[in-house]
Amino acid sequence: MMAPRFERICLIGLGLIGSSIAWGVKEKGLAREVVGHARSAGTRARAIELGFLDRVEETATAAVAGADLVILCTPVGTYREVGEAIAPHLMEGAILSDVGSVKGSILRDLRGIVPAGVHLVPGHPLAGTEQSGPESGFPELFHGRYCVLTPEAGTDADAVERLTAFWQALGSTVEILSADHHDRVLAITSHLPHLIAFTIVGTAVDLAEDIKQEVIRYAATGFRDFTRIAASDPVMWRDVFLNNREATLEMLQRFTEDLTALQRAIRRGEGEVLEDRFARTRAIRRGVVEARQDDMPHPEPK
Amino acid sequence: MMAPRFERICLIGLGLIGSSIAWGVKEKGLAREVVGHARSAGTRARAIELGFLDRVEETATAAVAGADLVILCTPVGTYREVGEAIAPHLMEGAILSDVGSVKGSILRDLRGIVPAGVHLVPGHPLAGTEQSGPESGFPELFHGRYCVLTPEAGTDADAVERLTAFWQALGSTVEILSADHHDRVLAITSHLPHLIAFTIVGTAVDLAEDIKQEVIRYAATGFRDFTRIAASDPVMWRDVFLNNREATLEMLQRFTEDLTALQRAIRRGEGEVLEDRFARTRAIRRGVVEARQDDMPHPEPK
Repeated sequence: MMAPRFERICLIGLGLIGSSIAWGVKEKGLAREVVGHARSAGTRARAIELGFLDRVEETATAAVAGADLVILCTPVGTYREVGEAIAPHLMEGAILSDVGSVKGSILRDLRGIVPAGVHLVPGHPLAGTEQSGPESGFPELFHGRYCVLTPEAGTDADAVERLTAFWQALGSTVEILSADHHDRVLAITSHLPHLIAFTIVGTAVDLAEDIKQEVIRYAATGFRDFTRIAASDPVMWRDVFLNNREATLEMLQRFTEDLTALQRAIRRGEGEVLEDRFARTRAIRRGVVEARQDDMPHPEPK
Repeated sequence: MMAPRFERICLIGLGLIGSSIAWGVKEKGLAREVVGHARSAGTRARAIELGFLDRVEETATAAVAGADLVILCTPVGTYREVGEAIAPHLMEGAILSDVGSVKGSILRDLRGIVPAGVHLVPGHPLAGTEQSGPESGFPELFHGRYCVLTPEAGTDADAVERLTAFWQALGSTVEILSADHHDRVLAITSHLPHLIAFTIVGTAVDLAEDIKQEVIRYAATGFRDFTRIAASDPVMWRDVFLNNREATLEMLQRFTEDLTALQRAIRRGEGEVLEDRFARTRAIRRGVVEARQDDMPHPEPK
């Protein structure tokens, strides 16, 4: 598919994802102008200094004016407020999208607000690092990653197609899912792992001081990976859990039951239960490794 | 410290760790002869084909004969049986060590068995990959890693010093800890993270088939790290939990309490509790990153 060209792309929120999109748009020439807005004056100034925007606006309403693609890159908890502010200023025919890790709540928060003639196409690039802020962005962030779009039935097909081509131009493989299905899959692949990593690193923080120093010193493979995950942005993750509550709690319940069964096996010295359980998880690793190789050939957009 | 030279090093168990030690010994010339034993005839044959041993023996008792350094590289659950078999054949003045992830149980299992004149110096190189088997070893595995030794009070100082120099020659930074302290630190940094990773990947395996395929497809950063950890050797990990039961259960109890508190906050929509908890874990990540940079300069032994 040919790379799309937008007249004016507006990014609300200029952190890791917003700045990476801006860099990618510049690199691939996907817009005549890239406009941005961030709530903090410091972030707005940094964005201009760093050079990934053509123009920055002090208000979201000014930023969206005349934009044919608007992407919300703020924590999902802000969407309702931001949506209400910008809705009257959105251009007829514009695409309104986002990059949030939860999709059901986006539809809930924005569905009734978006004016007729504006196409709501929620999106979620499965990409990120432990870094945050406008300095952390880079155009290759989305290369070889999935981007999931969750338009509701009846959404303008042309709008979905243009947004698909946009993410493909940024290097991603685009998939269409229902918001509900997305939220259940992400609850187990991303939200619960993050919750657990935040928890175990917090548990370590609370240990007595003498052991804590050695926890840091001897962070073996397992724990080091957890600390990286647990260094992610606290506000973003707070909003994920508040907005994907049901699916997260369901997966957490299943996890807790399974963990309790293993705890019982350890306490009772049931080696066969442990070995059997541990052996079963190797297969899924092979699946993950193969999926990455086969499905993510780091496509270079034309 | 000068690299030590042993007359004959004997490795019982020829998996990832045993084969990596053998490769390192060969590369650095740390022994006149490297002898090995594995229970499986197939592994013994592979070891000779791969070329990391000078000699392989069908029995552990034959392998330890005349060795001045014997290292157990089998799962910790085997130590008692192996120890009883080899004890009468250990050479006067030999060092008996191991590479197990649990240290208290090693002392418990071997203390009464080791004959007078043989120096028991338990060890634990904090190194590994998700791979196992004789093909997976490589001499750089221990470079820049910690190796913890846990000799009991009264252990021959010269033996501890020689083993220290041995691990330094393999590229590791050596630390001396009590077995009990080691087991508590590792329970939170390594054993609990592995238990959790095994559990969550198992939870995903049990999900309905339609969602399972997408779990593999969309394994975001969080889950992918967990699948790697959960691909570790099942028998080795079974033995870790059976032999470090008390410390693992204690850390698991703390973790479960913390997770339950977060679950409650999610259910009640308490955003401040979540954000506060998540913000606290960033600091420990910085500690881990700095510890790795400052303490682990990948030392090249002289």
